[in-house]
Formats: sequence, structure tokens, C-alpha cells
Amino acid sequence: MRRAMAAADVGDDVLDHDPTMAALEEEVAAVLGMPAALWMPSGTMGNVAALMMHLQRGDKFLAPEHAHVLGSELGSAAWLAQGMPEVLPHDGGPGRPAPDTVRAHVAPGPYFSLRTTLLCLENTHNFAGGTVTPVDEWHALTAAASDSGLVVHLDGARLWNAAAALGVEPARLTGGATTVQVCLSKGLGAPVGSVLVSDAVRIAEARRIRKMLGGGVRQGGVLAAAGLVALRSRDRLHDDHAHARLLADGLHERGWAVDHPETNIVLATTEDPAATVRALAAAGVGAVTVAGRVRFVTHRGISTEDVHAALAACAALPAERPTDAGAASPA
Amino acid sequence: MRRAMAAADVGDDVLDHDPTMAALEEEVAAVLGMPAALWMPSGTMGNVAALMMHLQRGDKFLAPEHAHVLGSELGSAAWLAQGMPEVLPHDGGPGRPAPDTVRAHVAPGPYFSLRTTLLCLENTHNFAGGTVTPVDEWHALTAAASDSGLVVHLDGARLWNAAAALGVEPARLTGGATTVQVCLSKGLGAPVGSVLVSDAVRIAEARRIRKMLGGGVRQGGVLAAAGLVALRSRDRLHDDHAHARLLADGLHERGWAVDHPETNIVLATTEDPAATVRALAAAGVGAVTVAGRVRFVTHRGISTEDVHAALAACAALPAERPTDAGAASPA
Amino acid sequence: MRRAMAAADVGDDVLDHDPTMAALEEEVAAVLGMPAALWMPSGTMGNVAALMMHLQRGDKFLAPEHAHVLGSELGSAAWLAQGMPEVLPHDGGPGRPAPDTVRAHVAPGPYFSLRTTLLCLENTHNFAGGTVTPVDEWHALTAAASDSGLVVHLDGARLWNAAAALGVEPARLTGGATTVQVCLSKGLGAPVGSVLVSDAVRIAEARRIRKMLGGGVRQGGVLAAAGLVALRSRDRLHDDHAHARLLADGLHERGWAVDHPETNIVLATTEDPAATVRALAAAGVGAVTVAGRVRFVTHRGISTEDVHAALAACAALPAERPTDAGAASPA
Amino acid sequence: MRRAMAAADVGDDVLDHDPTMAALEEEVAAVLGMPAALWMPSGTMGNVAALMMHLQRGDKFLAPEHAHVLGSELGSAAWLAQGMPEVLPHDGGPGRPAPDTVRAHVAPGPYFSLRTTLLCLENTHNFAGGTVTPVDEWHALTAAASDSGLVVHLDGARLWNAAAALGVEPARLTGGATTVQVCLSKGLGAPVGSVLVSDAVRIAEARRIRKMLGGGVRQGGVLAAAGLVALRSRDRLHDDHAHARLLADGLHERGWAVDHPETNIVLATTEDPAATVRALAAAGVGAVTVAGRVRFVTHRGISTEDVHAALAACAALPAERPTDAGAASPA
Repeated sequence: MRRAMAAADVGDDVLDHDPTMAALEEEVAAVLGMPAALWMPSGTMGNVAALMMHLQRGDKFLAPEHAHVLGSELGSAAWLAQGMPEVLPHDGGPGRPAPDTVRAHVAPGPYFSLRTTLLCLENTHNFAGGTVTPVDEWHALTAAASDSGLVVHLDGARLWNAAAALGVEPARLTGGATTVQVCLSKGLGAPVGSVLVSDAVRIAEARRIRKMLGGGVRQGGVLAAAGLVALRSRDRLHDDHAHARLLADGLHERGWAVDHPETNIVLATTEDPAATVRALAAAGVGAVTVAGRVRFVTHRGISTEDVHAALAACAALPAERPTDAGAASPA
Repeated sequence: MRRAMAAADVGDDVLDHDPTMAALEEEVAAVLGMPAALWMPSGTMGNVAALMMHLQRGDKFLAPEHAHVLGSELGSAAWLAQGMPEVLPHDGGPGRPAPDTVRAHVAPGPYFSLRTTLLCLENTHNFAGGTVTPVDEWHALTAAASDSGLVVHLDGARLWNAAAALGVEPARLTGGATTVQVCLSKGLGAPVGSVLVSDAVRIAEARRIRKMLGGGVRQGGVLAAAGLVALRSRDRLHDDHAHARLLADGLHERGWAVDHPETNIVLATTEDPAATVRALAAAGVGAVTVAGRVRFVTHRGISTEDVHAALAACAALPAERPTDAGAASPA
Repeated sequence: MRRAMAAADVGDDVLDHDPTMAALEEEVAAVLGMPAALWMPSGTMGNVAALMMHLQRGDKFLAPEHAHVLGSELGSAAWLAQGMPEVLPHDGGPGRPAPDTVRAHVAPGPYFSLRTTLLCLENTHNFAGGTVTPVDEWHALTAAASDSGLVVHLDGARLWNAAAALGVEPARLTGGATTVQVCLSKGLGAPVGSVLVSDAVRIAEARRIRKMLGGGVRQGGVLAAAGLVALRSRDRLHDDHAHARLLADGLHERGWAVDHPETNIVLATTEDPAATVRALAAAGVGAVTVAGRVRFVTHRGISTEDVHAALAACAALPAERPTDAGAASPA
Repeated sequence: MRRAMAAADVGDDVLDHDPTMAALEEEVAAVLGMPAALWMPSGTMGNVAALMMHLQRGDKFLAPEHAHVLGSELGSAAWLAQGMPEVLPHDGGPGRPAPDTVRAHVAPGPYFSLRTTLLCLENTHNFAGGTVTPVDEWHALTAAASDSGLVVHLDGARLWNAAAALGVEPARLTGGATTVQVCLSKGLGAPVGSVLVSDAVRIAEARRIRKMLGGGVRQGGVLAAAGLVALRSRDRLHDDHAHARLLADGLHERGWAVDHPETNIVLATTEDPAATVRALAAAGVGAVTVAGRVRFVTHRGISTEDVHAALAACAALPAERPTDAGAASPA
């Protein structure tokens, strides 16, 4: 990847001439089955640019509980995109609402009511544990949105993982969405960047919004070159998923309360998650707390040996005892 | 009231010289036990001006489910005041969260997390049925906010009703709040206007915000004169409450599923609330649907005879049959 | 006017039922030759609501120097309506740009350029001295805007004065504008209120924006009744204009440097305008400083005797000597 | 530079652990004599983050005509930072206002007036032709700002060029500014990135704003490595300046109307600048139009041979004849 970056052919992408950026955008659009794409410096900018296009003052948008756009983007979804959020429960499966729940949240009101115009979905859903929305459920959700007059934005930062877990092409998981954001960093392992895909008109507008927000970069080709390498090596996500299962199984054997990982995220319940994370950090194992649990993530930089080392570190945790509450067989 | 309006001494309130406005603001501040006050053309503007003072980009605010600031102000709380809302359940009683729920929603995070800085409360809570937060529970909630580093804004559009129902001075229900909005219209019966109360520094800033939003008016004294009459006649709210009980008892006798009214709002459950409202309108009885139920409101313009007429109209409703679900004894 | 207010038939204008409001809005729309109208609590809100409809993020709007939307609305034109202002010189006459100046400020650029989409005009122009844009120049300006792809918003807070000075119906001064804001207060003398006129679709959207900003009022009929009286008595503006000329002539005779008033505003140049205003205030004469000069305004509350009294007070000003700079014959 | 990028030690800069980023930020802060620094994906984001910290709703900011924050950032300075711009003439020298002009634009008004709180300066000033504000004039301007209660933000995208042209350390040109934005791309030649410098408290807040706007990147170290190389090679800007003089002298000899270049920008006046730019592009010479003139920029990628080739291309321009208007000796 560093070699590709070093050899990248670049231009000035603000002035619209960076050839490697153009190649990356074209390839991502093709892989996702959408007409056009735009590189973004982060998934946060990709999400907020999409919401800025979809929402008007006085609009309401729906998103599943703990969605990234709700709690992890410092509220820009509301004040920048000017929409009011409404949280949907995960009653359609882990990380997603039921289609009827979407329908039930859309009711036309008098002129002085918020208008519900947008459904945001997240696949995989990060804070639910990297959980996957399968193809048919995705279609049922976009159908519910369409029936209700809603546009769909997919936060697909981890869409590559969902596709790998399901064994389908990523384009199978985008139909019915008007905009999709995918991340080249995180699981894929490029150093910087996300891509927003949509139709050509919206991508032209997103390019304008990106410039407004300060996300236009000059010789972005060096980053795009890394993005291309990452994109083409997404088959290796199967390794991350295997590593996550290995970790979860090992933790389970050691008596931890862990969810069965659907992709590359392992959520464990402990008595004091913050203390667990600190103890793990002291042992050289990276983890964070999300939604009151301990989250492990496997990625490009984590080998099978790293997983075994992490398991050893977990086993050696002195005072910290995992709780039984919420324990689930990882098998 | 119209006589008072006709005789009002006026100035130019944008230039800060309207004597009747000044008198109204002084009297409202005194009644609420707060240092300073500012007239606003609506409760919506009073609420959003308060939120604009309390919130910064990247902040989160808490409010009980179905609060007016969440769903009835077209999202200005989010895009104008730039805060991200988080909805609290009514687990402390009808219309209010439990103090521990407030505490549980305030957790410091890393720099890239939303900061929870504000608790909005609503007393009485309109969509919960005009429900009253008693004095000691109010203090427990403001104590929880204070413990957690939160400022409190009280949407007191119906605070006069809460005070009347509890038999206490309104000032007993404001301690611990940094800003309070009260309405002169609605229950009190002035044609136009609300008042925001706070300390002198914030009221000076609110005056500036009011001008930005286009809420500064010229010879507002004609409205302030009506507001003073309304403010001084708030004892008559007891009549509205008695009328609400009369209505609820009558509906209950006729087999309707109605909540016991704590103040001047009666919520009834019917099979098809929208159809019920239409049928009532045809019979000359005003009602609206809120949160999936039928809402009746008693106010200055509703006499005992009007209540009896409404009951007669309800009894005569032909096809519309109330449901038993959710029925509660109105006694 | 107070009698009309006392007798006004009212409803709840937020819920869309106030009959006097509806009558006022219909009559203002008819007088201005536009399809629809909406009452606003202030001209500031009327202006910003119009700009919110016309502007998108990334847009630029043009306005003549010292326009109310530029300097007197606390910047809401920019942050609320999200447009970037560009100031035009008064090279088409006092208070207005030349049509070619409008054309010269509209140049399409690359995608990362501001798009110029709106021309704001002001007739009469307050800070230029209540100066009138005549009918043919108005048409030349709206033609320049139209040629350049710009929408026109007219801040007509003082449009009644322009029509009176020109001896034409107000509707002659609105053609080519998409939105027009007129004031019922100021010259016309109603206590509170402005009206925004446009087509039916935009007025429906403006009603929604008014609610967002907190400008929806309940029983607004009491204010609308005053507005109707004010609207129908606009012939008396000729008296205000005569009073302004009387004042200017008198000041000129006393050696003051004053502009010839086109309508009801008299601008005078003194060495220390702030000191002049203070001395006048001490003598019971109201004046303010605008753009470095002393401004007198004649209105419904100013009689011929008041003008003579003001002249006597001006003559008696002890130390304050007007400057000769900028003197112009008021004849 | 590509080698440095390929070898960069990286972390996750959103989570605050990228060591190369930290090294870059520390070095830029030291070079500019400021306590703290933060990498930004673009100068636009650096500028708008600074303005978001300095401005509140109802504030006005001053900037010299044609400043980047006025016309080249899609208005985000207004709608995102919520300040109203006011344009200052270049009456203190090319690209800068006179100190007394700054003072004259700051007048306290009544509560309903915009408050002027910020002065933005630009050194070198791009659209004025890369013009340099010397050290003593810089100090006179920041003193005028300080006397008037204004904070100063310096858009120093080309500050390196100003320092090179003056033969002083860059830190000599930052004193008195609260925030300074410098670019690592453009003249210095890094592929992507700018740096915002200020005190530690503001930089912590800027980090938060960067995350809100979507400018937080993951393994930014690859870009920071390039930035460090660029920063340390800024001595080579003298070559760019010599190349610009060579180009201007050559154009002047060929009869073109060109300004004497103070740094690396050459502005030429032609009859039809857009046509000139097209003709130059066809000949393989890059130029753009700014403010109605043709702009050439010399940079890391332009050699002496390139300048001679550009001059040859200019000489061969067939139909396009430069105008004499505005001609100035480039000597």
C-alpha cells in the first residue's frame, strides 16, 4: 500500500484533476452498483454531506439506536444538516428496526409538524457488535422507507464486512439507498478516507458541500492509491472475521460473557468495562467501551498470533471478573 | 382585557421604551421568583432562545418523551440551538423522567463525544395529559441535573396550571432552573405572548436573540396590557380544572376510556382518534389528536354549559365507539 | 385603531383559523398585486423568512449598501438563511444600484464558487434617507436580476411611502419581485406587524418557517385589526411627507445641512451627530444617528405643531453647530 | 517526500495517537512561535474552524477585499461560523486595510446592532497578487485590532512566502494573532494539509470542531510525514520567487501588462482573461483568472526551464493581445 502511495499519479483534486482519485471513485461506484462516487476525508463527512442533501429545516430523520450519525458525530447531523433525529429500536434484529417500525414512525401532520423524510441505516451496525443486515431484510427496510416516502442513506462504513459475512457482492446491499457511505480505513486498512456514492447530480452537490466543509484536498491521489489497494484486498476481511470468532470462542472458554461475532467486532460484558479496558491496555491489548460493554475489533493489523496473545492477556487479568449477565454462547 | 389593551400606554419596545411591556416583564419575574424577564411572541421562541443560550455545537440536551421542544417546534431546538436531543422516558411519573435516569444519561466521554449540558423539563407536560410535577419531585430533578453539571430549562407554558393544581405559588416550581418560559396565552387567555425569565445577563442576551429571530415588536404594550390582565386572573384556572374533571367524569360515565385529568387537559382513547375529532368538530366540539389519543382542553372560553354541551355531543356520536384499551377511572 | 382591535373577531392563527388575520392577509396581497400573504410579527422576520426560502448554503445575495438586511438584522440573513452578502454601491441613484452593476456582480464560476442567486432591494431605502426608487428604475433593476438568473426580494417596509411619493398604486412597485415584505407599523402606525407577500406555495412554506422561528401567534386578530385600519389609512402618508419637507425647509433656513426629503425621513449632517441627538432628546425631540448623520422621521404621531416645536428646539441648540459639509438645498 | 510518507510511523489520529502528526504539529507551532497546533485537511477547514471559535451569532468580522474567507470558501464563514462579513478596502497597501480603517469600522451600537469582534488578515494576499504585509505594518494592524477589542485571525496559507520575501522568521509575522492557519500544500508542496495554530485551549476546541466537520483522519501520519518534509524545505521558496520575477520580466519584455511579483504569484492584465487562460492551457501552461486578471503561480513543480517554456508559449499566443490598461513595470 505504501508503495502504491509513493507511486501515485496525482493532480489537484479541488480543481478536479486528480487521476488516481477519479480511478478510485469510479471503482468504488462500480463495486457498489451506483452511478457516481466522491472521496471524503472521513466517514463523518460522508454521512453529514449525505444528510445535508437529504434534509431541510423542519425535517425529521430516523436512525436505529446507537447509530453513528446519532451519537458519534457531535450532533452535526442535527445542526449542520438541520434535521431532528428520532431513534428507532432494534426490533427488526440486532442493529436494525423492523420495517413496520419504520412505517409506524411516518405520519403526516399539520403544517407545523416535523416532516419525516429520511431513514438512516447502518450495516454492519458498529455499536450493536458489527451485526449484519441480510439482503432480504435490507430490501424489506428500503421498501418500507419507499412506501412511506422516505429516502434511505446507508452508513456503510463496515459494509464490506457485511458483504463478506453474507458471501455476497457489496452491490447486493445498496439497492434502494439514495446515498451510501463506505470507509476505506477501518476494516479495509487504508490510512485515510471514505467514499460517498450516489447519482451524478447528488455527487456534484456533495463535491460542493465537501469544499464548504473543508474536505477538498489537493494531491489526494496519494490517499486514493492506498484506497484502491485496500478496496481490492477486501477478501482478507474473512481473516478478520475468523480472528474475531477465535477471540470470542477463547474468551467464552475462559468464562467471559461475549456475543457471538457476526463480523470483526467482539462485544464482551464485564462488571466494570472501563476498568477492563484499562487493564487490557496495560497488557498491550487495545479495546474500548461502547454502549456499556467492552469492544474488541480485528483488522488488517491483527494476526492470529495477536489474538492468542490477547487471549493470554485476558486470562491473566487479575482482579477484573467478567459478569455472567448477558452471557451468550459464542458458538 | 380588550379594555386594557385599548388603554395601554405604549412605546417602541425594540428601542426598549414600552412601559407596559416593562411592567409585565417585572411582574412575571416577581411572580416566578426570578430576577429578570422578557416578553416573547410565542412559547416556541421563548424555548428556542433559551436553548440557544444554553447549547453549543457538540452539546446534547435531555428532554422527556413527547416534550414540546422535541416534536412541536419543527426541530429548531436542534438546528437553531445546535444541540442534539436525547429522549428520556417518563419513568419518574407521568411527563417526567426519574432523577436517576437523568444521572444515568450524563457520562463524560472523550473529546469527540457529545457533551450533555442541558435538561429540559415541562410542567405541566402537555402531551402526557397536562400532568403535574410536584414540588419535591421538581427539586429532585433539578438536584440530579445540578449533580450532573446540567443547566435546567423549564418549559412552563402551563406552569400556571401546575401551581394551581398543587395549590402553591408558581415560584415554588422554578427554583433550580436557569431559564423558565411561561405562556400568557393558552390557559391564561391573553391573545398573544409568552415570557422568558432568567437572570439579568441572560435576559439581555435573550433580547438580542429575540431581535435576530424577528421577535422584537414595536408598540407591544397593547399585548402586554392583555398579558397583565391574564396574569392577574390566574386564579380562574381552578375553574378550568373543575371543568376538565366534569368532562372526564361525564365521559367515563358514558363509557369512554379517559385519564383522570390533573389540570385542564383530558385525554381519551378511541378506536380512531382522527375520526373522533372530525365527528366532534361536526358537532361543534373542539378537540385534537395528540400522541394517538383525543385531547380536550378547558380554558377561559369554556363554561360549565359548554362542558355539558360537549358531553351531549360526545354521547350522540353515532358510529364512533371508544375502545376499552387504556381506560382508567377518572375519579 | 384601538376600537378595531377591541372588537376584532379572532381565532387561533397557529391552527390557521383567525378570520381577521385572513382578511388582513388577503387585503395586503390584493393591494400589492400578489397572490398570497402572511402576517409576521416584524419586518426582520419577514425578510429573513424570504431569504431562507431563496438561499441555499453556498449562495451569495446582493443588496445595496446600508440595506436593513445587511446591517440591522444581526446577521440572520447570513447564518439563518446561509447566504453570503455582497454589498452593491448606490450608483443607480440614492439607495439603489445601477442595473448594470447588478449584472456585473453575477458571474458563473467553477463548482467551488459562491452562486449569486438573489437580489435584495429596499424601497424606500431607509438609511439613504427614505429615498424612492421610481417605477421605471424598479423595472430596470428587476429586469437586470431576471437576465442574470436572480430572484428579487423587496424589503418594502416603507413601500407605502414610495408609492405615496410617486403617486402610484403600491402594486406598481412589486412586479418582478418574488417576495415583498411590507410593514404595518412604522409609517402606517399599527402597533405590531409586517406582511410577507408572494405566491401561494412560498407563503405556505413561509408559514412553516414562521412557526420554526417562533413567530406564529395565537389570537393575532387583535393585531390584524389594527393592521387593517393602518392599511386603509395610508393616504395620510402625504401628511408625513409634507411634515418632513416642512422640517427640512425649516432646518435649512436655520443653516442646517439637510437633504431634501423624498418621503418622511430627514437626514441632517452635524459635527457630532451623537451629541446632536442627545441635545434634541433633552429638548423632547426624537432623532437617531444613522450612517453618521442625524435622522428625523415623521409619522402618524407627529403633527404640524410637533414639527414647529422640533424646529424651535433645533434653533435653541446651544453649542452644537451643524457642519456645512454635505449641505444640500432642501428645496 | 514520498519516501518519508512510505516510512511514516502512524497511529489513529482521531483517537489522538498518531506520532508523526504530533511531531508535525509541534514543529509548526514552534516555527510560528505559538503554543499549540492542529493538522487540518485543508486551509478552508482551518479558517472556518478559527472563525467558528471567534464568532457568535450577531457578530461581524472584517476582512480585506477579495480575502479567501470572503469569496473562496462558499460562504461557510457566514453560515457555519455565523458571523456577518464586512469588506475592508486595500487602503493600507496591496492586500491590506489601513490600521485606521480597521478602527473606523468598529463602533459600539445599541443591543440590536452587530458586534464587530474579529479581524481576518491574509499574508500574502492571494488575489491581490501574493502581496506581502511587512512586519511593522502587521504590528500596526494587530495593534489597531487590539485597540478596538478585536481578535485577529491570520489566513497564512502563504505566510511562508511572506516570510521568505521579507527575509524574516515566520514567527515574526504571527504576533498579535490569536489563530493562524498555514498551508503545507500550495507553495510548500505537501500533497494534503494545513495547520491551525493557537493556544492550547483553542486547539483542543479546534480538534473537536475538526471532528464535527469530518476532518478527523485515522492514520494521518502518512500526510504529516510529507508535511514535515515540506516544512523543512521552505528555503526553496526563494527559487519560486525568482521564477516569478523571471516570468514577469519576460512577459513585460514581450509587452504584457504585469504587476511586479512580490512572491510567487504573477498577475497579468489581458483583454479577455478567460480566453488567455484557455489559450495558455492549450499550450500546456497552467493559469487561472482571479479578480478579472490572469494569475500564474510558481511552485515546487516549476523549474527555470518551465518558466522559459511558459514565456515561449505566451509569446506564441496568436490572437490574444494583452491590454495596456493597468500595466506596471515589473522591475
